[in-house]
Amino acid sequence: MKKVLAFDIGGTKIAYAIIDENGNFVNDVVKVTTPKTAEGIYDFFKTVVKGLEAEVDGVSIATAGAVNNENTKIISHVGNLPEGYNQLDFMALTDKPVLLENDANSAAWAEYKSGAAKGSKHAVVLTLGTGVGSGIIVDGKLLKGKSGAAGEMHVRFDDRHNRKCTCGLWDCLETYVSGTALTADAKLYMGQDMTSYDVIRGLKNGDEKAKEAFDHWQSHLENTLVLMGNIFDPEIIVLSGSMAQFVEYDKLNRQANDDILTQPFTLKQAKFENNAGMLGAALLLFDRLK
Amino acid sequence: MKKVLAFDIGGTKIAYAIIDENGNFVNDVVKVTTPKTAEGIYDFFKTVVKGLEAEVDGVSIATAGAVNNENTKIISHVGNLPEGYNQLDFMALTDKPVLLENDANSAAWAEYKSGAAKGSKHAVVLTLGTGVGSGIIVDGKLLKGKSGAAGEMHVRFDDRHNRKCTCGLWDCLETYVSGTALTADAKLYMGQDMTSYDVIRGLKNGDEKAKEAFDHWQSHLENTLVLMGNIFDPEIIVLSGSMAQFVEYDKLNRQANDDILTQPFTLKQAKFENNAGMLGAALLLFDRLK
Repeated sequence: MKKVLAFDIGGTKIAYAIIDENGNFVNDVVKVTTPKTAEGIYDFFKTVVKGLEAEVDGVSIATAGAVNNENTKIISHVGNLPEGYNQLDFMALTDKPVLLENDANSAAWAEYKSGAAKGSKHAVVLTLGTGVGSGIIVDGKLLKGKSGAAGEMHVRFDDRHNRKCTCGLWDCLETYVSGTALTADAKLYMGQDMTSYDVIRGLKNGDEKAKEAFDHWQSHLENTLVLMGNIFDPEIIVLSGSMAQFVEYDKLNRQANDDILTQPFTLKQAKFENNAGMLGAALLLFDRLK
Repeated sequence: MKKVLAFDIGGTKIAYAIIDENGNFVNDVVKVTTPKTAEGIYDFFKTVVKGLEAEVDGVSIATAGAVNNENTKIISHVGNLPEGYNQLDFMALTDKPVLLENDANSAAWAEYKSGAAKGSKHAVVLTLGTGVGSGIIVDGKLLKGKSGAAGEMHVRFDDRHNRKCTCGLWDCLETYVSGTALTADAKLYMGQDMTSYDVIRGLKNGDEKAKEAFDHWQSHLENTLVLMGNIFDPEIIVLSGSMAQFVEYDKLNRQANDDILTQPFTLKQAKFENNAGMLGAALLLFDRLK
């Protein structure tokens, strides 16, 4: 049976594991703190690849940043990784096939191939974490666009210059629907020293202000579902990331489907959590190895 | 050479012509006022088809409303056409092949196959008229979604309940970027009895208030370009419809490309105007007839 050495690299952690053709993790996932320099990251990759390449048929890497359509290099600036990271030569790590893919796209592919969106050839997977990422499946393929950068969820939801976005613009969807956004709502409705954690705790204790903050956050999530439902007419929208666990699925499913002009979709929580990126990029590589 | 009898049906006019395989109009386009009932519309179609079917290899119909993936029927409510229109049996009009497609999708296909977006396998065509329509080309294919209804541009741009949208929601993109939206901006900046025509006239005469109204309208068009650029990473965005002629292309191209996170796209005005829908649906049918 074919196997792949699968990495997932983010701003804080690098994770890796060996995954087989059936999508099973052969060993426990190893996690290390992301080195502080691009050279440090590359050295770490080289060490692990050298140690394990004899056991596998290729190397897959789920990464922050946009990846080109050939899955060979990063084509965007990557804010939360060190300077120079986006110019690393990942293809030179080994003589075996190497595949690179954006982490949100990889997670979406995992959900489509064997998770919550399995069997749905038109699917949207939104990752609600510190920011908001998306992976979109159109007719059984990842939506990549001309260069590979498609699926950036930076859409202006307002024109009042209320909330500054990490992309440099104001009032993007991300500033209303991410975990960071819930902290902004906590400050708005509960007080300056409050965070998203206070909202979640307050919700459990029946705090009215916490409910207002959460409802404001969730109403923008509904806007996001209406947006993606209207533009893509998907069979399913899947929510993943740290914020996905707090969403009122039944209520939001009903409201968003009432508001779209297209045909109804299903709203579900992701099946895979932290390992979705690793699994998805590995599954993409298995498709190439066939 | 193969020929198609091509119709385009909207709320005010039905147009038809015979189009050949090279996309040439064999005769002048005939235009009639849309009959007031669904039966009247169907009778008109029957009469024209009966009169011309011997000369053609099939019938194409570009229509308001969402059309299913088989291109055989309308699957949505169609606001600006008579009750019962969306249940008409277009396939029964003749024994020859009949193809139905949404008008914005048809126009996009015409621009992709032989217009402003020719050769761009990733393209977005926005129709800025009374409302806002879109046709999206992903990797050389029309984006249709699970049911055929994809590409609805109803995205909430604000949460203040400023402008009611025809879709029943508030503050959709359409209420900020359409011709109707420019009239709303005319009232906001120039006075209650002003319309989009006053804005356009005022612009020509150097009227400051008209410029403010237009700039407000155009800033939301820029938001729309950023949205579509970020989500689809297209090679080109094409603007068509009655409002497309007023846009400052160079300025907007520069601004929107400064603001996206994906790779630069080109902004262009559509090549085909009124006949784009007829041509596009005919070209889709020619692909089927091959």
